[in-house]
Amino acid sequence: MASPGSGFWSFGSEDGSGDPENPGTARAWCQVAQKFTGGIGNKLCALLYGDSEKPAESGGTVPPRAATRKVACTCDQKPCSCPKPDVNYAFLHATDLLPACDGERHTLAFLQEVMNILLQYVVKSFDRTTKVIDFHYPNELLQEYNWELADQPQNLEEILTNCQTTLKYAIKTGHPRYFNQLSTGLDMVGLAADWLTSTANTNMFTYEIAPVFVLLEYVTLKKMREIVGWPGGSGDGIFSPGGAISNMYAMLIARYKMFPEVKEKGMAAVPRLIAFTSEHSHFSLKKGAAALGIGTDSVILIKCDERGKMIPSDLERRILEVKQKGFVPFLVSATAGTTVYGAFDPLLAVADICRKYKIWMHVDAAWGGGLLMSQKHKWKLSGVERANSVTWNPHKMMGVPLQCSALLVREEGLMQSCNQMHASYLFQQDKHYDLSYDTGDKALQCGRHVDVFKLWLMWRAKGTTGFEAHIDKCLELAEYLYNIIKNREGYEMVFDGKPQHTNVCFWYVPPSLRTLEDNEERMSRLSKVAPVIKARMMEQGTTMVSYQPLGDKVNFFRMVISNPAATHQDIDFLIEEIERLGQDL
Amino acid sequence: MASPGSGFWSFGSEDGSGDPENPGTARAWCQVAQKFTGGIGNKLCALLYGDSEKPAESGGTVPPRAATRKVACTCDQKPCSCPKPDVNYAFLHATDLLPACDGERHTLAFLQEVMNILLQYVVKSFDRTTKVIDFHYPNELLQEYNWELADQPQNLEEILTNCQTTLKYAIKTGHPRYFNQLSTGLDMVGLAADWLTSTANTNMFTYEIAPVFVLLEYVTLKKMREIVGWPGGSGDGIFSPGGAISNMYAMLIARYKMFPEVKEKGMAAVPRLIAFTSEHSHFSLKKGAAALGIGTDSVILIKCDERGKMIPSDLERRILEVKQKGFVPFLVSATAGTTVYGAFDPLLAVADICRKYKIWMHVDAAWGGGLLMSQKHKWKLSGVERANSVTWNPHKMMGVPLQCSALLVREEGLMQSCNQMHASYLFQQDKHYDLSYDTGDKALQCGRHVDVFKLWLMWRAKGTTGFEAHIDKCLELAEYLYNIIKNREGYEMVFDGKPQHTNVCFWYVPPSLRTLEDNEERMSRLSKVAPVIKARMMEQGTTMVSYQPLGDKVNFFRMVISNPAATHQDIDFLIEEIERLGQDL
Repeated sequence: MASPGSGFWSFGSEDGSGDPENPGTARAWCQVAQKFTGGIGNKLCALLYGDSEKPAESGGTVPPRAATRKVACTCDQKPCSCPKPDVNYAFLHATDLLPACDGERHTLAFLQEVMNILLQYVVKSFDRTTKVIDFHYPNELLQEYNWELADQPQNLEEILTNCQTTLKYAIKTGHPRYFNQLSTGLDMVGLAADWLTSTANTNMFTYEIAPVFVLLEYVTLKKMREIVGWPGGSGDGIFSPGGAISNMYAMLIARYKMFPEVKEKGMAAVPRLIAFTSEHSHFSLKKGAAALGIGTDSVILIKCDERGKMIPSDLERRILEVKQKGFVPFLVSATAGTTVYGAFDPLLAVADICRKYKIWMHVDAAWGGGLLMSQKHKWKLSGVERANSVTWNPHKMMGVPLQCSALLVREEGLMQSCNQMHASYLFQQDKHYDLSYDTGDKALQCGRHVDVFKLWLMWRAKGTTGFEAHIDKCLELAEYLYNIIKNREGYEMVFDGKPQHTNVCFWYVPPSLRTLEDNEERMSRLSKVAPVIKARMMEQGTTMVSYQPLGDKVNFFRMVISNPAATHQDIDFLIEEIERLGQDL
Repeated sequence: MASPGSGFWSFGSEDGSGDPENPGTARAWCQVAQKFTGGIGNKLCALLYGDSEKPAESGGTVPPRAATRKVACTCDQKPCSCPKPDVNYAFLHATDLLPACDGERHTLAFLQEVMNILLQYVVKSFDRTTKVIDFHYPNELLQEYNWELADQPQNLEEILTNCQTTLKYAIKTGHPRYFNQLSTGLDMVGLAADWLTSTANTNMFTYEIAPVFVLLEYVTLKKMREIVGWPGGSGDGIFSPGGAISNMYAMLIARYKMFPEVKEKGMAAVPRLIAFTSEHSHFSLKKGAAALGIGTDSVILIKCDERGKMIPSDLERRILEVKQKGFVPFLVSATAGTTVYGAFDPLLAVADICRKYKIWMHVDAAWGGGLLMSQKHKWKLSGVERANSVTWNPHKMMGVPLQCSALLVREEGLMQSCNQMHASYLFQQDKHYDLSYDTGDKALQCGRHVDVFKLWLMWRAKGTTGFEAHIDKCLELAEYLYNIIKNREGYEMVFDGKPQHTNVCFWYVPPSLRTLEDNEERMSRLSKVAPVIKARMMEQGTTMVSYQPLGDKVNFFRMVISNPAATHQDIDFLIEEIERLGQDL
């Protein structure tokens, strides 16, 4: 385990150089530096190795930056003409950086140094010979580095070490073998856009302080509404901090549309409201209902078929039941891409029912929305154009860096009237520009992070066709996985048939369980298989995939593919790895 | 106005080189490049000017990157030995970057190119000779660049131009003369930390995928609770997407604490709940009440004194009134640092009342919380240690990049029981590590952006004492401003006395209004002064400060200082600028 100050070396130990004091790491770093254009790599290496462009064979015992300085000055002529590093971070503090007088030089050098650390991490993230994670238990991690906050400042050398240590223990979410969540991968243009967003460091509430980003949100949301199928991209929308909040916003707006007095009078002034969603839907619907004062008991879970799709006849039956009791159905949230099975509710049938009973139709397409970009797969969301609101998270299937979640609303102006409070210190009515671009009163948030730029820039860089290719490839990989394991010994599918999304749900049955009868003992033993394999995966850092129980089904693996770096070989690797780690169970 | 592709040059026109085709811009860029250490600057300049280290005097007509390639190859020997750029971005697309095979070299070059654009922007942000904003009206901005999203990808040259154009029209929120919001400034360590956060691209919901960040949140929230004054830093908390959401979470938890059945049964199952906050409090309290089904009518606004502080006797009177009606007071939200006046409610008196009537005491210290870091100023929050919950936004007074807002809760476990839904696909109970580090079920969000790292790294780099120095300096600058204008001709203070926070509220009265009687016509004319001066500031891009009306007071300037780059000279400049732009009104 690395001690403070040696984090940089620890990076290197992953790729075989082993001993943290081995100069092989400096060499590896130099190889990275060599990727720079225009001879900059040589300069960087020269700095590392005392102006010799080849790694010195004799090892140092200190991290490269410090080593640089020592090696660069081993000559015995003082003063000498050896190149000397201009910056010694151990003597510098944050107060030496901009806006300090003459802080430019140190600032540029420091930020470039940080950037070198980040670039190295990026390159390693895509390298299959590195670990997905260097896993440590919480108590280990708390003890093995000093993370505490103190009265006195650290110097910039220590700050750089903090950065390296943080990345050393981070999950490489861009690694080709990271499949753990719906959001995986690391898009280079998206990353660049997020760096720019950080640098611009502003807030979405008014055009005044975020002119470009507000316009890009306008352009991007309109495009997304066009793709959903609303005529001319008309309607409204906002980027919110995640799908759960987007779903809650939809519920809030649906309630307001039916009973606008709820804004002033609260739930006491309205009849009992009931929301409907499938038993496979995301838990955020219940969270939202609890928060909005509707209560989780008023969220009715509609039965699903074997594939996890909402059964429309059950929806209609429950609506009638509720109406008979005198309650008011106000929202149906259909899911386009359920979290575990990747199921698409039958949106056209749901839309018919919503129209019949005059209920707000929301589509939670947080996970499945990306498929709208694909000519081949968008039929799975047929009927989404009839929704009143849609949650669509580009940070999932479209590979946009976290966070990027859109709520789209068909009726314009409703978000504003539902949420506005007319704060005069932000939304002055006598400003000199068109106030419709001050979007801050559309949402519950006051300050709002700029989430649009990374999506917009990725879209410019990939084109709609680029997103389509990415999505088609991920779905093809899921089918590839399905085809391999459906008849393979030791595997059982959780549900039959080709995956509709990239979710492939299966049990791995170790040899010792294969001959057991299908009884409670077998179920009990099977339920322990996935957690143990997963723990071993993490401890060895080779790959990561999720598992969970669902209903009466004991722990099974849920493989999802949104990672643009994944290939057929990575799918093969996953299978081999599950078998390697699970065969003795 | 820049056309696509010329965005880079347009940067330069700000600093006097004027004509976008003037090579002075390339020279300026080279000067920036020269700040790099180790001779890298020379290399970069050489690339710019065809291996000559001095700017060529004959101008090119194309942007520097393209110029680079042309200039580098003007010799007539083919093949020649002139240095050639390795990367022509016009021939590259996002698909050439990682995870593409052999994508490393192009990726590193591309990200470095983006970084150079960002570094240039950072340096310019702190340069008083550049504009705070290059303002354009929404329709102009929409028309003068093509921001649309297309089917086909753009090449990486175009992507870089998009970045430059976006920054060209962005507000320089780090500029020493940007005073428009409570969040200003650009901290270099915070920026580096946010870049790292983007690169790590993960999600806070489980330890499994954000081990370091989850621990840093634990360490940082504990430290903040210690500073609030809770014994041993005990309690709970979370970073949420902004102060409005933090305040809403507090309201949600307070309601749950009193009536836990509301989670399942909704507001129908509980008596009418009433929240109290001052008439100067933030509008998010009403937004929260509307969302939670409490209703804005159930938020009672308590009177303030002339300085904007809640009057405790009015609070008690209203509580008794409400109780007599049979309603249930469940929350008092006191404000520590109001948005406009910067007032601190008398927390000790409020705490006594809350104890007497057994009401949850929340302190919205989104803006004022930073003063807890200062030995000199923390007395203004005396009594905060008696609160049940506290909102504290380090992205405001502490200068952390957006977004960074903490909700601190004194009672441990309450957030979890209030919000948890036990999603089995995330919070598996048979994981191999201590599940108390899976924090995702504490909040309404499912996915949650990593907001802690920039605060943590800045704290390491500044130490508590560094934050203290920053805060003391900003308050000293506010007092400096107050002392200049309190007796200066043409200024009227909105309220008397030294500012308690950095808010300084005043009218500028142009000469033509100074002799008018204090009647309606004067008020009407005065109300138009601040909007016109503000519009002129933005059009000329020299500085930015906010204004608003409040109650019966017509539009006045609200100066706030959280910007670490601001100096006494910038305050002087602001005054001169207001007078220059407003004297003819």
